[in-house]
Amino acid sequence: MPKTIDVTELVLRDAHQSLMATRMAMADMIPACEDLDKAGYWSVECWGGATFDACIRFLNEDPWERLRTFRNLMPNTRLQMLLRGQNLLGYRHYEDGVVDRFVQKAAENGMDVFRVFDALNDIRNLRRAIAAVRAAGKHAQGTISYTVSPLHTTAKFVELAQQLLELGCDSICIKDMAALIKPQAAYDLVKGIKDACGQETRVHIHVHATTGVTLVSLMKAIEAGVDCVDTAISSLSLGPGHNPTESVVEMLDGTGFECRLDKSRLLKIKDYFNKIRPRYTEFLSNITGVETEIFDSQIPGGMISNMESQLKQQGAADRIKDVLAEVPRVRKDAGYPPLVTPSSQIVGTQAVFNVMMGRYKVLTGEFADLMLGYYGETLGERDAALVEQAGKHAKKTPITCRPADMLKPEWDELRSMALELQGCNGSDEDVLTCAMFPQVAPKFFKTRAEGPKNLGKDPAAKPASAPAAAAAPEGGSGDGKGPVRTPISYDVTLNGNKHRVTVSPA
Amino acid sequence: MPKTIDVTELVLRDAHQSLMATRMAMADMIPACEDLDKAGYWSVECWGGATFDACIRFLNEDPWERLRTFRNLMPNTRLQMLLRGQNLLGYRHYEDGVVDRFVQKAAENGMDVFRVFDALNDIRNLRRAIAAVRAAGKHAQGTISYTVSPLHTTAKFVELAQQLLELGCDSICIKDMAALIKPQAAYDLVKGIKDACGQETRVHIHVHATTGVTLVSLMKAIEAGVDCVDTAISSLSLGPGHNPTESVVEMLDGTGFECRLDKSRLLKIKDYFNKIRPRYTEFLSNITGVETEIFDSQIPGGMISNMESQLKQQGAADRIKDVLAEVPRVRKDAGYPPLVTPSSQIVGTQAVFNVMMGRYKVLTGEFADLMLGYYGETLGERDAALVEQAGKHAKKTPITCRPADMLKPEWDELRSMALELQGCNGSDEDVLTCAMFPQVAPKFFKTRAEGPKNLGKDPAAKPASAPAAAAAPEGGSGDGKGPVRTPISYDVTLNGNKHRVTVSPA
Repeated sequence: MPKTIDVTELVLRDAHQSLMATRMAMADMIPACEDLDKAGYWSVECWGGATFDACIRFLNEDPWERLRTFRNLMPNTRLQMLLRGQNLLGYRHYEDGVVDRFVQKAAENGMDVFRVFDALNDIRNLRRAIAAVRAAGKHAQGTISYTVSPLHTTAKFVELAQQLLELGCDSICIKDMAALIKPQAAYDLVKGIKDACGQETRVHIHVHATTGVTLVSLMKAIEAGVDCVDTAISSLSLGPGHNPTESVVEMLDGTGFECRLDKSRLLKIKDYFNKIRPRYTEFLSNITGVETEIFDSQIPGGMISNMESQLKQQGAADRIKDVLAEVPRVRKDAGYPPLVTPSSQIVGTQAVFNVMMGRYKVLTGEFADLMLGYYGETLGERDAALVEQAGKHAKKTPITCRPADMLKPEWDELRSMALELQGCNGSDEDVLTCAMFPQVAPKFFKTRAEGPKNLGKDPAAKPASAPAAAAAPEGGSGDGKGPVRTPISYDVTLNGNKHRVTVSPA
Repeated sequence: MPKTIDVTELVLRDAHQSLMATRMAMADMIPACEDLDKAGYWSVECWGGATFDACIRFLNEDPWERLRTFRNLMPNTRLQMLLRGQNLLGYRHYEDGVVDRFVQKAAENGMDVFRVFDALNDIRNLRRAIAAVRAAGKHAQGTISYTVSPLHTTAKFVELAQQLLELGCDSICIKDMAALIKPQAAYDLVKGIKDACGQETRVHIHVHATTGVTLVSLMKAIEAGVDCVDTAISSLSLGPGHNPTESVVEMLDGTGFECRLDKSRLLKIKDYFNKIRPRYTEFLSNITGVETEIFDSQIPGGMISNMESQLKQQGAADRIKDVLAEVPRVRKDAGYPPLVTPSSQIVGTQAVFNVMMGRYKVLTGEFADLMLGYYGETLGERDAALVEQAGKHAKKTPITCRPADMLKPEWDELRSMALELQGCNGSDEDVLTCAMFPQVAPKFFKTRAEGPKNLGKDPAAKPASAPAAAAAPEGGSGDGKGPVRTPISYDVTLNGNKHRVTVSPA
């Protein structure tokens, strides 16, 4: 009897987030739901990440209504979401009471599986959300944000998995958002977790396809005992997205493993999204091939283009090589944070500053906060002199506590704020929407009654002239203190020269 | 010490043949040659397949001159070509003396490695070419055309490998042009060959990326002991092309295997072809994702689109599903030929005829020839009643001999024919060009002095209005009798209804 490998289908969340800037309208997902529900997936990821933000910012769509619709249309399949720990789906840390309510409301509206992660792998930023998922009786999946550094050994990641299980997680996810996990590393990590935590420990693996090697990594993870792999239907796969579902099904033929998905349903889902994809051409990522340079620079593709545009704005596009060489140094000084939003932007921008103005002559506020512990702990030690400099610069003291411990209960205040808004329906769901996106929610509440706005365009109509949009961020640039405007502009004067630097999510 | 895995780079031949209809001009390859030569490849495939045809048909380029240029520019690397056995690079069987001369001239002009294949895996169609390569003191690589059928077992393929080695081949190539080889099958086949023929037997593997699983198949082939893998630099990879060179290099990290290629050279080659690719947009394949349906239908993508266009011409596009269901039956009746040009066209067209006019009510001339043995032997037995019907239809008797045994010495005649042409320089090379492409050579000889025609276009200039061209055929539709015009049109009258059917290379 071949061992069954479970599959999480990503097409309704991370696939279109990665490939078409999270712009897919609910109306374009609904016709696929019956086949998705009956294909035999372990779960369908369909909510969280950047979808909540995109719903209210671009699509005039109520994300809670989207969730309820998925629940109705997919009664047989676990619904799964990506949750940024203490940041929820917003761009700052929230006080625990808000975290509890968000999780409770998501569960009530139909969510089954909560994949909870933190960009720095600081377990204190995950603890409350995981406890809330357990209290709601739902599946809590603790996440390892995978990265590569001299300190990020298999043993360290296994330790993190053990800590997540101690928090009561129902499963562990290895999340490789930058496509850095190579086949042998995937094998070693899955095996390491299984050996240390018990073969019965449920392990999932989430990889992107950007570097072109991760389908092999999935094979190796499967050989090492992984229980569930994340894939996307082929017509919305590859590039900065994910490995194709159908290819995973087929590659297991004869290996002693099998996916048990209904191939005729997969074909229908593929054909359906093949027709939908051209509707979003203007949002499609222009990365289509593979990018293996990421392995050497350890700098995700989106981060490079972000730094390039920062340099261009300052007429210094030719300095990109210096900046790429500076990034690993800044990352080391900051204690080797995984390079994923927001840490990728913080480190990248500081590297640009270092090259343009001299090393650490000027610190960004976010970099200072990172050095001072306001995002949480990093695995490596942060450079002591630089921590001192950051403290002086930001006029703050370093913290070692959990960042959210600095926050006072805030639900009542958030509630009052929301209730004042025109169009707010007074529900806890609306309060949470407003809490997470205080700048966007007011307009959304006002226009909500007009109904969803589908940005898809008939490809037969004349092509849009708008430039392709960048992929939406996976995380925000939360600093534990308050909502951050993105993009952010800085005016920096050094030796009499004024520099304007704009930082946007990669 | 990690085991070294050799790499054959395909960018100068199969990559642009598969992705941009073989249209890349020599001028666009020359700047990459130094890096290709010094990157550490075992070989660079750069000649043969459809490139010879494309050179004289579309590029006004002398293919022999192209070969000499490669030899000059890449003194440190083995040059490799794909040779269609007794068909050479043309579309019919040639008499042995012509085969000998072609191989001798290719060797003299700089070719090192001859990959010799036959669409039906009939070893008699390979024997003479392999002997000629050995006589020239060059590397003879015997090829297994990989396919899937109830008869094509690992054991049968291993037997073929043994026969190829008995002919004196220096290495064996597993050639999977339709991307059908799954990981376990790749493992079993490589291991089967090594176990049966000795671990010292050199095995290469050539896979396309179409189904999305074959990078994993390469990994498994490597684990089973394969010596060399075929890849294409990432900027001209994937889709109906091949797996990216850089991804293969990276995926081996820590596995006990390594490629020892110069990664900084690879990056330069990647960047270079990344700039060249947009020049050929009008020829780019419109297949970009993966196509796993091929596994179930066993019908390559190019063949499906060919059949669709045949059906459309007859206003019967809605019958495609019937035709797809008919193909496996026709293939079985024909003795399970691998479905690759020309057999894919022959079987596909017959399936269309069967659906449109009733099963085997009308036979195409090519299908009759296939049934009668004029292409060679198939692994399976051909349907006896159908063989009899084919004989009556074509007014020919079935043959069991090697098809080329029916041919008389023809060099002198080919030479006289060539010498009569305006612009023929009288060399054996020109005679061979004319022998293989008697319809194209006259015009080419006439215009040769005008110099190469680069079909690449500056992407900044206004886009071309020409429709994207189909990928060029890997093989021809040779029938052992004479050059075949492609596309071929048939007028078929049945029960008073006239049908026009046009067959083009898939």
